[in-house]
Amino acid sequence: MNQLKGACIIGQSGGPTSVINASALGAIEAALDSGSITKVYGAANGIKGVLDDKLYIMDEESREELKHLRFTPSSALGSCRYKLKDPDADDADYKRILEIFRKYDVRYFFYNGGNDSMDTCNKISKYMLKNGYECRVMGIPKTIDNDLFGTDHCPGYGSAAKYIATSCMEIYLDARVYDTGQITILEIMGRHAGWLTAAAALAGDYAPDLIYLPEVAFDMEQFLDDVEQVYQKNGKVIVAVSEGIHDRHGMFINEYASAGADTVKDSFGHAQLGGLAAYLAGLCRHKTGAKVRGIEFSLLQRCASHAASQTDIDESYAAGRAAVENAVSGITDKMVGFKCVRDGGYKCEIALLPLETVANTEKKVPREWINEAGNGILQPFADYALPLIAGETKQEKVNGLPRFAKLKKVLAK
Amino acid sequence: MNQLKGACIIGQSGGPTSVINASALGAIEAALDSGSITKVYGAANGIKGVLDDKLYIMDEESREELKHLRFTPSSALGSCRYKLKDPDADDADYKRILEIFRKYDVRYFFYNGGNDSMDTCNKISKYMLKNGYECRVMGIPKTIDNDLFGTDHCPGYGSAAKYIATSCMEIYLDARVYDTGQITILEIMGRHAGWLTAAAALAGDYAPDLIYLPEVAFDMEQFLDDVEQVYQKNGKVIVAVSEGIHDRHGMFINEYASAGADTVKDSFGHAQLGGLAAYLAGLCRHKTGAKVRGIEFSLLQRCASHAASQTDIDESYAAGRAAVENAVSGITDKMVGFKCVRDGGYKCEIALLPLETVANTEKKVPREWINEAGNGILQPFADYALPLIAGETKQEKVNGLPRFAKLKKVLAK
Repeated sequence: MNQLKGACIIGQSGGPTSVINASALGAIEAALDSGSITKVYGAANGIKGVLDDKLYIMDEESREELKHLRFTPSSALGSCRYKLKDPDADDADYKRILEIFRKYDVRYFFYNGGNDSMDTCNKISKYMLKNGYECRVMGIPKTIDNDLFGTDHCPGYGSAAKYIATSCMEIYLDARVYDTGQITILEIMGRHAGWLTAAAALAGDYAPDLIYLPEVAFDMEQFLDDVEQVYQKNGKVIVAVSEGIHDRHGMFINEYASAGADTVKDSFGHAQLGGLAAYLAGLCRHKTGAKVRGIEFSLLQRCASHAASQTDIDESYAAGRAAVENAVSGITDKMVGFKCVRDGGYKCEIALLPLETVANTEKKVPREWINEAGNGILQPFADYALPLIAGETKQEKVNGLPRFAKLKKVLAK
Repeated sequence: MNQLKGACIIGQSGGPTSVINASALGAIEAALDSGSITKVYGAANGIKGVLDDKLYIMDEESREELKHLRFTPSSALGSCRYKLKDPDADDADYKRILEIFRKYDVRYFFYNGGNDSMDTCNKISKYMLKNGYECRVMGIPKTIDNDLFGTDHCPGYGSAAKYIATSCMEIYLDARVYDTGQITILEIMGRHAGWLTAAAALAGDYAPDLIYLPEVAFDMEQFLDDVEQVYQKNGKVIVAVSEGIHDRHGMFINEYASAGADTVKDSFGHAQLGGLAAYLAGLCRHKTGAKVRGIEFSLLQRCASHAASQTDIDESYAAGRAAVENAVSGITDKMVGFKCVRDGGYKCEIALLPLETVANTEKKVPREWINEAGNGILQPFADYALPLIAGETKQEKVNGLPRFAKLKKVLAK
């Protein structure tokens, strides 16, 4: 065994999830328990905390208080959407990271995030290797979008999917209480991959009538015809659409909605989306004359820890632990992923995937899991996703409300 | 004891709640168990089901299946927003109701709803008395708005308040993950009374920075100053507003938002509200230049049974049972309410209130529970509301999702 002694940094990046802190806890606990890791730092706001020399000392936190991280949503250490430049073009950030790693004798770097974060991991790892600084780098997956390549699924997805399916069931009943016509449009997150929107189908008997994912080009005429057909037949229509639906030319439908308004992009150049549900609801009212309602699940779908999947919580924790334990045993340059079997009962095992292949590749919902018309989801998706939403969270409650972790966040000097 | 033998009708009215079916179950079980009640009917879509001779036979349902009503949201029998005319002006509906009551030998009428439903109860009761038809009429309260006069609180409020407070806590953490400025506007239901919006304050350390109820006239200049002040200080602002905030002239702020757009009113003449969060978020961006986000809790706040308060579920059930048991014992013309003590532990008892005084009176949040500036909620509100959100729902789950009641709904002929 190739023992490497030194400190570690754990960072969180990208959009938060209900269970991102369960992964952090897995990593922190494994690091605190490790004989090789001399000090455990948490980066404030991900890689920005490294660049700004803003590191929290996890060894200073109470082990009891840390345990509440398992049920606390939304990046407890803070997050960022900072994209490192290509080191060949501009290596200033990398020089700074190496400087901080040297300052604190950091020999382990654990980064918890989505595609962009795996790209960050990969670039840092390569830079350290090139400059002869021994450091083991491991990615821990996190994304409600479930779009990371190579892993069966992503920590965070199961909880978001459970929230979406549960809310769809509740809205189904709500939308049926009056004997008057009604069309309800549900807008669900997911720019390029429809995993989250597909989760609406898990509601089974209570699922939306029509479901549109970004995997299939959206045709407005067809959509309005679909809605009208269900409306004429049942008087009630519930539609789930991904925020990222786009036409055959790749234009987001939402961009038609906000045409003329300011277009805001985030620092990765992704267009910021929203307001689609209201836009489509208006078109449906115009087409059918029905009463309409647009509902955005908005932030709740990524932070509703009160409805998290215990399977997701446990797996997220395990992913964090595995990253540290594998790094300590000599492994580097990998993302922790999951390899699962579903025949004869669900089993999930840790798999280690090369960062290189994970970074910047998006995994989409297979076309054959979507019906031919592109407005419904087929059984293989449910077979895939149902095990991921199993189990109720054991989140502690005080006075009927969640008890979240309260960290001291002592800064390293 | 004045024994009255005959059938009963149970009806649900107004907007659904997470626990309205718990009250229905309490009433149905008590009626099925009663020696005086010969047959138990559920009115399809409230009073409309009586007028249309569309009654479900509850005796035909499995007692085991009925038990799932306790955890099934959104009026299982269907609801309506039908307003009976003044009988002195037009008694056609009342004649029809009497005809149906005679047809099925209905001697007990239980109606579960809000202010308008208590008005319906009151008018029906008076008409039956005037026409010499012996029938006992009891109202069972139901409203997430918590605005019924005379009762400590209303079934449905605790669960909605718990969902709102929990979601506020989760959004608080979500809104803080990046180290960049952000203003988040949360739009919460409540036309004239701010009970639901006040529930945001129950989030305690994670509560919104600013909370605006309809009990205080809304001043746009003051609001934007309030937001800017918190923004300058913290870089993050979370604001909760009631959909019903209005200026000193009584004009809904939302009407400014939708000026020029269609104005839709429901059959009681209430203006239909929505879109306020996005409107205020836009104004905040204009004022501060900050990144903003508007979130509507929308239908979820009234149907999120997965996050219901077990206290609310138990009390709702008890209210339904009490309505039937009291009617069977000879009482009529009352609404079941709650009388509570909070000193030395929370205790809740059934109280019977005259329908006359309950109907069409709205109970508002006391001004002294709101801070002087009109942008925050004081401790007496938390003391009042916290006991109502206590306890986690015992809702059964199958495959990680709620198991709702599936009724046969056999129609009477």
